[in-house]
Amino acid sequence: MPAEFDLIERIRRRVLARGDVLLGIGDDAALLQVPAGRQLVVAMDALNAGVHFPHGTAPADIGWKALAVNLSDLAAMGAEPAWCTLALSLPSADAAWLDAFLDGFAALASLHGVALVGGDTTRGPLSACVTVHGFVEPGRALRRDGARPGDDVWVSGTPGDAAAALALMGLGPVPAPASGIDAQATAALRARLDRPTPRIALGRALAAHAHAAIDVSDGLLADLAHVARASGVRIEIDVDRLPASAALRTAFDADARRLLQAGGGDDYELAFTAPPAARGALEAAATAADTAIARIGRVTGGDGVVARDARGLPWTSPRAGWEHFGG
Amino acid sequence: MPAEFDLIERIRRRVLARGDVLLGIGDDAALLQVPAGRQLVVAMDALNAGVHFPHGTAPADIGWKALAVNLSDLAAMGAEPAWCTLALSLPSADAAWLDAFLDGFAALASLHGVALVGGDTTRGPLSACVTVHGFVEPGRALRRDGARPGDDVWVSGTPGDAAAALALMGLGPVPAPASGIDAQATAALRARLDRPTPRIALGRALAAHAHAAIDVSDGLLADLAHVARASGVRIEIDVDRLPASAALRTAFDADARRLLQAGGGDDYELAFTAPPAARGALEAAATAADTAIARIGRVTGGDGVVARDARGLPWTSPRAGWEHFGG
Repeated sequence: MPAEFDLIERIRRRVLARGDVLLGIGDDAALLQVPAGRQLVVAMDALNAGVHFPHGTAPADIGWKALAVNLSDLAAMGAEPAWCTLALSLPSADAAWLDAFLDGFAALASLHGVALVGGDTTRGPLSACVTVHGFVEPGRALRRDGARPGDDVWVSGTPGDAAAALALMGLGPVPAPASGIDAQATAALRARLDRPTPRIALGRALAAHAHAAIDVSDGLLADLAHVARASGVRIEIDVDRLPASAALRTAFDADARRLLQAGGGDDYELAFTAPPAARGALEAAATAADTAIARIGRVTGGDGVVARDARGLPWTSPRAGWEHFGG
Repeated sequence: MPAEFDLIERIRRRVLARGDVLLGIGDDAALLQVPAGRQLVVAMDALNAGVHFPHGTAPADIGWKALAVNLSDLAAMGAEPAWCTLALSLPSADAAWLDAFLDGFAALASLHGVALVGGDTTRGPLSACVTVHGFVEPGRALRRDGARPGDDVWVSGTPGDAAAALALMGLGPVPAPASGIDAQATAALRARLDRPTPRIALGRALAAHAHAAIDVSDGLLADLAHVARASGVRIEIDVDRLPASAALRTAFDADARRLLQAGGGDDYELAFTAPPAARGALEAAATAADTAIARIGRVTGGDGVVARDARGLPWTSPRAGWEHFGG
């Protein structure tokens, strides 16, 4: 069984080169050069087996997702990714498992030009903890506290798919449908759970136009509640305007879809607010970033989040979002 | 039981303010300003229960140590600490446990002016993963690859104490002595295991004089082997010149001490090499940093690490250091 240093060597071989990495894996710490005139953006998220991904998830998918959820935080700040560190805890030094994990991790890292510059491999329960570093122009970061009354509320992609995949495994906020589900739809939903797409290009494009942004990790309403609280505003959502994927429409009826889309987490889409005058610019930015966006509500004075359906009836999810500890 | 957001609020209340933290805990990512003309130094280490600290370790000690082992990596680079992030995995949302953990974490953070700027609390097996950020002047970082033939080899403090504490618990590389151990010596050794001192001031002072440095986490010989390999040199250590604490001398005989000092990990002292011409400057730097240092060997041409005792006999530890995965 390979020892820690063999594992580190396997990791090092997969690392992207960047000119601003003065010293990468292999010393006590990494030595890095932040470009002049840029602020540093740092996020850290851990994935634990059975909490953030179902037991039995393919190692390549765990590797992808461990980086994706972190890059998603950079996207929500409008930042450009640069570097990451990885602390990987493994029950045993399984080289084949590590290589598969690195396949997924490195695939996403090269898509975004991210260099792995350090970290740690330890023995312990399966867990992947990642810290990501990116850059943003001064004053351009997208924060949670910038939403203003009169803003539109937008979301990228098709929220609810990841929660639907969990529901099909018996792990979601709604029961799996009693009738059999189309295998293609199941696979499409599962791919959205296992391989979320961090909306980096969209986040960069939004930085010029949006007032506030957050990534949807805990659930759309729960995450928008963070924006409402930080900004001191009220957010109203039209639940029936949430774009649903074809797979979600195939697998779940309208009532279940509302719950999955408004309350389900793990989509890693961006929710953001922007003034109505920016609608054209946002549509153009979304097209340039090759990412669909939809206008789903508005910001008003007050506080909290209110969701309404197409009939205008106030609508409440029985479970507003995921929390990692029971309330 | 408090939910995740209550835990985050408890953490946020304990955080040190720094002017270079433009946005700290509470958004998708932190927004930070690296000073002009400085390089960024980043290290990440995770502590898992039962691997990096014995089960039953006091939460305040876990909090201290989770930050200490990371600050030790900055010390070994000669860097000035600035910020950290923390991903804490807890079996349950235990507010009293968290507060005690934060007591230890915050105590060390304020000693070194470190601001906690983000992270994650999740449900899972007990684990604390920390990323630290610091600064260093260009060209001044202490690396592992700078040792040169002719250099002296030095170590700070009294290595072996942490391994001795583990040995007294039946967890070390040598058996606990059959005779009873003095309670005061036991407590002193245990404090060195649970509350290691990151040698920040010494590391900063060394940056002007030393050729190479590493912190002693896996064991003195094992860590010096990293320096030898990275620098392409051979390192010779006089085992009997390793400074032993009074507690270590009380608790273990000379043979056990050699094993604990040369092979035991977890001391977080600095081992470094420097030219003989720097001896006076190093002694002055150590005095200014209020940290004892001792000259324990020399760098020659060749490779590997050789340890000799006072009689000049080559000496080999049966266990050169800790590895987190079995070899």
